[in-house]
Amino acid sequence: MSVLPKTDVLCIGNAIVDILAHVDDQFLIDQDCPKGAMNLVDAARSAALYDALPPAIERSGGSAANTAAGIASFGGACRFIGKVHDDQLGRVFTHDMRAVGVAYDTVPVSAGLPTATSMIAITPDHQRTMNTFLGACTLLTEGDIIEAHVADAGIVYIEGYLWDSPSMKAAVERAITLAKAHGRKVAMTLSDSFCVDRFKDEFRALVEGPVDIVFANADELTSLYDTAGDLDAAIDAIRDRVDLAAITRSEHGSVLVAGDQRHDIAAAPVAVKDTTDAGDLYAAGVLFGLSRGYALPRCGQLGSLAAAEVVSHVGARPDVRLSDFALETDSA
Amino acid sequence: MSVLPKTDVLCIGNAIVDILAHVDDQFLIDQDCPKGAMNLVDAARSAALYDALPPAIERSGGSAANTAAGIASFGGACRFIGKVHDDQLGRVFTHDMRAVGVAYDTVPVSAGLPTATSMIAITPDHQRTMNTFLGACTLLTEGDIIEAHVADAGIVYIEGYLWDSPSMKAAVERAITLAKAHGRKVAMTLSDSFCVDRFKDEFRALVEGPVDIVFANADELTSLYDTAGDLDAAIDAIRDRVDLAAITRSEHGSVLVAGDQRHDIAAAPVAVKDTTDAGDLYAAGVLFGLSRGYALPRCGQLGSLAAAEVVSHVGARPDVRLSDFALETDSA
Repeated sequence: MSVLPKTDVLCIGNAIVDILAHVDDQFLIDQDCPKGAMNLVDAARSAALYDALPPAIERSGGSAANTAAGIASFGGACRFIGKVHDDQLGRVFTHDMRAVGVAYDTVPVSAGLPTATSMIAITPDHQRTMNTFLGACTLLTEGDIIEAHVADAGIVYIEGYLWDSPSMKAAVERAITLAKAHGRKVAMTLSDSFCVDRFKDEFRALVEGPVDIVFANADELTSLYDTAGDLDAAIDAIRDRVDLAAITRSEHGSVLVAGDQRHDIAAAPVAVKDTTDAGDLYAAGVLFGLSRGYALPRCGQLGSLAAAEVVSHVGARPDVRLSDFALETDSA
Repeated sequence: MSVLPKTDVLCIGNAIVDILAHVDDQFLIDQDCPKGAMNLVDAARSAALYDALPPAIERSGGSAANTAAGIASFGGACRFIGKVHDDQLGRVFTHDMRAVGVAYDTVPVSAGLPTATSMIAITPDHQRTMNTFLGACTLLTEGDIIEAHVADAGIVYIEGYLWDSPSMKAAVERAITLAKAHGRKVAMTLSDSFCVDRFKDEFRALVEGPVDIVFANADELTSLYDTAGDLDAAIDAIRDRVDLAAITRSEHGSVLVAGDQRHDIAAAPVAVKDTTDAGDLYAAGVLFGLSRGYALPRCGQLGSLAAAEVVSHVGARPDVRLSDFALETDSA
C-alpha cells in the first residue's frame, strides 16, 4: 500500500505556447489545414503558416498543461512535467504554470529546438484548427520523470499526444510503470481522433492494461473501438476496461461511465467564443473532483463548469479562479 | 512643394510586446507600482515583477505601434519605425505589424538587449498600470530613420515616450527635421502625464515649434501648461500653437481644437473591459480621417469608434477590421 499523496494530480504533456488568431474558412482551405484537427508541422511549415496568419495573441497552452492549470485554479495540488527551451516563450510557459500555482521544474533545454508553439486558427463558427510545432517538447526523456514526483501523486494524467515522438513515449511509459509500482491511478486523454487513428492499437492496449481513467470525446472513443460513430456501442466497449470513462459531447454535456453506473451531465450554459480545448478544462474539473473524493455527478459538473469558463473567451486557460465555481456549487 | 505621399502616416515609437494580466489593487501596492502610470523598469525589476504577476497573455503593443496597426486596420497606408531584437518576441511583434498590413522593416538588433516588454496589470476598475522594460527600443538610432520613408509620408506621428532615451530622441529629432524639409505634417502624442512632467520644457518647445498636430488626454495637456487641472485654460494655451489639438476625455469623449474651431465629440457607447491605450486607437481614427481629408467631426468620430473597439476587450490592438466601422459611418 502507498502513503497518502502530497500532489493531487501529476500531469505530463507537451509544453506549448499557443498563438491564437481569428481567420475565415478560406484561410484553412488556402493553407491546406484540415479543420478541427491538431496538425503536426515542422519548423519550416510553422514559419510559413505564421507569415500567413493574421495578427495574433500568445497564451500558454498544451493539453495536459491546460488541465494542470485548471486543477491548480480549482485549488488542487498539481505538478506538471513537460519540456521547453530556455528561451522567451519557454519562460512565458514556465511563468504561467508557476503563477497559477502548478509545481513545474522540468529542466529546460538550452540548445537545439525552440519552445513548442501551436498556431490556433479560430473560425467564425468558434472551432479551432491547430498547427503544432513540437520543438523542444520532443526532447522530453525518461530522465525527466522523477520517481518521487510520481510516487507523490494520487493520479498521474497523461495526454495521447505524447505518443507522437519516441522519446516522449518512453518518458510516459516510465511514468506509467512507476505509477503502478507506487499504487497510483493512471488517467489518460485520447487527445484527438486523428491521434487515436495514429496509435489505435497502442491506445487500446493502454486502456485494456494500465490506464484506470480515460477522457475522450465522442469522435475519439468511437474511433478507438471502430463503432462507426455509435457512441453507446463504444461506451459498452470501454465500460469494463477502466475504472472510469469520461466522455465529452460538446454542447450535449458529458457522460461518466464507471462499471454499471452511467451519469449524463449537462453542459453549463455559456456564450461560446472559442472552443480551444474545452476538454482539457473538463478533465481538470473531473480530476479535481476525484482527488477530493466527490461523487461522480459532482465531478462531472465541475468539469462542465470549467469547460464553460474557457469557451467563453479566447485561450485555453481560465480567466478566473475556478475555485470560485467550486465554492458556488459546494453542496455535494 | 512636395509630391503626394505614398504613405498616409509614418509612426515612430517603441516596439513592445505587452504582457497582460488581471490583478487586484493590492498587487499594485505590494509591488509599489503607481496606479495608471507607465513606469519604466530595468531588466532585474522587470524579472521580479514578472515572477509576481498572475498568468498572463502576450499581445503586441507599443503606443505609436498600436496607432499604426489601427490606421492599417482602417485601410490606411501606414509605416512603422521601432526597434526589436531578433528574438522570439521580436518576431511576434514583427509578425503582428506586417499581418495587419503595416510596412515595417526597421533592422532588428541581434545582440545585446532583448525585445521590449510591458507588463500591463489590469485592475478590477479596468484601469491599466504599465511596467515597461524598454530593452532593444533604446537601440533605435538616427540611422533607422530613412529619409525616403519620411518624404513618402503625409503625416509623421511620434510618441512622447521616445524622449526616454537619448538615442531614441536623436532618431525622432532627425525624423522631425526631415519631415519639415519635405513639407510633411508632424503629429505627436504627449504619451502620459508622467512623461510630460519628465520633459515639460522640451514638449512645450516642440508644440511651439515643429509639431502641427498634438494628441493628449486632459491630464497630459493640463500638466503641459500647468493649468492646475483647468482643461479649458490648457486648450486656450495650445489653441494657436498647433494646427490641431485632439484631447481625449475618457468616457466624456474628446475635443478637437483647430484655431477658432472647437468640436466636442461623444464617446462611442461600449462595455469597458480594459482601457489599455484607448488613446492610441483614438489617434489612429483621427489620423486616418485626416489622411482622407474628412471633416474634423468625422475624424473625431472615427477616433471614438476605434477607441471603443479596443476598450471592449483585453489588449490594445483591434480585434476586428476597423474599416468596417469606417464603412458603417461613411456619411460625412
